[in-house]
Amino acid sequence: MTTAISPSTVAFGEYAQGEDPLPSWNEGSAKQNIVDFVCGVTTTGHPHFVKPEERVAVFDNDGTLWTEMPAYFQLAFIFDRLKALAPQHPEWKDKPLYLAVLEGDMKTVAAGGLRGLLELATVTHAGMTTDEFSKIVEEWIETARHPKFNRPYTDLIYQPMLELLAYLRAHGFKTFIVSGGGIDFMRVWADKVYGIPPEQVIGSSIVTKFEMLAGVPVLMRLPELNFMDDNVGKPVAINMHIGRRPIAAFGNSDGDLQMLQWTAAGTGSRFGLIVRHTDSVREYAYDRSPLGTLDKALAEAQAKGWTVVDMKQDWKCIYPFETRK
Amino acid sequence: MTTAISPSTVAFGEYAQGEDPLPSWNEGSAKQNIVDFVCGVTTTGHPHFVKPEERVAVFDNDGTLWTEMPAYFQLAFIFDRLKALAPQHPEWKDKPLYLAVLEGDMKTVAAGGLRGLLELATVTHAGMTTDEFSKIVEEWIETARHPKFNRPYTDLIYQPMLELLAYLRAHGFKTFIVSGGGIDFMRVWADKVYGIPPEQVIGSSIVTKFEMLAGVPVLMRLPELNFMDDNVGKPVAINMHIGRRPIAAFGNSDGDLQMLQWTAAGTGSRFGLIVRHTDSVREYAYDRSPLGTLDKALAEAQAKGWTVVDMKQDWKCIYPFETRK
Repeated sequence: MTTAISPSTVAFGEYAQGEDPLPSWNEGSAKQNIVDFVCGVTTTGHPHFVKPEERVAVFDNDGTLWTEMPAYFQLAFIFDRLKALAPQHPEWKDKPLYLAVLEGDMKTVAAGGLRGLLELATVTHAGMTTDEFSKIVEEWIETARHPKFNRPYTDLIYQPMLELLAYLRAHGFKTFIVSGGGIDFMRVWADKVYGIPPEQVIGSSIVTKFEMLAGVPVLMRLPELNFMDDNVGKPVAINMHIGRRPIAAFGNSDGDLQMLQWTAAGTGSRFGLIVRHTDSVREYAYDRSPLGTLDKALAEAQAKGWTVVDMKQDWKCIYPFETRK
Repeated sequence: MTTAISPSTVAFGEYAQGEDPLPSWNEGSAKQNIVDFVCGVTTTGHPHFVKPEERVAVFDNDGTLWTEMPAYFQLAFIFDRLKALAPQHPEWKDKPLYLAVLEGDMKTVAAGGLRGLLELATVTHAGMTTDEFSKIVEEWIETARHPKFNRPYTDLIYQPMLELLAYLRAHGFKTFIVSGGGIDFMRVWADKVYGIPPEQVIGSSIVTKFEMLAGVPVLMRLPELNFMDDNVGKPVAINMHIGRRPIAAFGNSDGDLQMLQWTAAGTGSRFGLIVRHTDSVREYAYDRSPLGTLDKALAEAQAKGWTVVDMKQDWKCIYPFETRK
């Protein structure tokens, strides 16, 4: 395998000769497919060669780069914010959905569906400037803990995916996040944990408005949805933010299907990959769960020959902290 | 001057020792301000030093990077498209605004105001896939000619600004376009003429929609405005696409005021520059014209100490073709 990639690794000088760039990936078809794809698009003279500026790779975040169970981590942020803001909003006690969050009644929260969650998201994400919001997220992400692992949420990123991001970047790829999560929520920590700078983070957003506040220009966050970056929204957002069709796309659920379809439909060599959550011991095992549903995208992956990663089989370790044991 | 910038130029190795990186700029305060700013933010140990990843510079396009007279070049595209599409739309002859364009009656077109122009823009920019639209723009930009100079529009880019873009990039800056012009219109040629890749071009947009067309995923362009990237829209778009506050902003009209205010209001060293059109012989002379109005932004530039470029005084040449004479 190292022989196959040696021309490009030598060219980029990032890996020592013979060094495995994906040490947390077990040998198998998933790892082999990745290496073969990268070899083809980065080797001058290869029929699949792609110019460096067109090497765009897009990654879903929840369930693809970090864990998304028992619920999207941003939901924990929303609930924590609602609790923190509750003393200033006595009227919330008369709203069943809000009261359910405050009392930890997740059954009622779930019954509110996506519409209810969106309302809670916009309420807790609005009413401050963009700078103030960043500080709130920064503080939360440093102090909040995951209920199962009792660790900061940013510890629950996937070590094999970190290696993959680094491997692609070392081969001239520009790596982007394209997530249903909040764009301004992710940008606070994505650079630190994934090495993905704010301008390469794409996500859902609420409306912001330019205002002069006591002579100082600010961007105020309003409680109104601007863009939902999921499903059919993902190719739209990719076109808006990147303006190029990616040559590689990585996801884990049906929300990533259109992004994978859009990527795969381009000319030349294309790579699609789906992370399948199969490890109930080291992480979680689910396919057709209400959250992070993988059904249509899995069928299409099998039909189109996209790579499906079986976490339990393909990954030597899940999280970076395991390697430091 | 070359002494002042030598530490960083040597570090980036882009300019030979003693070489002037801005040869089309006359010596004077505008050029000196640029060089002083770049020296400060790129010299390690300097109190104004800024890390490379935070060196974001934003440029308006019309009137800042290329000419915008006798009218925004994209208007010529709109009118040419309307004429090309007219045979398929006999009903346009009954619409005064459309008929005015077809008959070259610019007085009636102007009377339609921004609202009328936006309607013409959305109609001519919609009804095809994103790939099809790119091809239409590509063909137009290669064949259309400017009425005064009888040259391709892309010849009418400013040589001193090209040097400035290159100078900033050589010093670790990421250069972005933030324009009221169409994002998908500019992306077709911006990389070729300015060296600014699609993902660093921000502009106005219409709605696009993901669709399956005979089994092939496409993004269809709909005749509906998505975002107007002008005035208060510019800081909003900068936050959405870049997620960082720029440290330098370059504009030429009141439409750039909020972008300049937003940039200048950050902490640390900040740079604001306004290109003033003062050369009726080599280009055009105007400040308070109906199009490209420079009034409030000029007053604020003077009050805030932003750099004002006087094209006639500060620029040795205007266009690249002059240097090839």
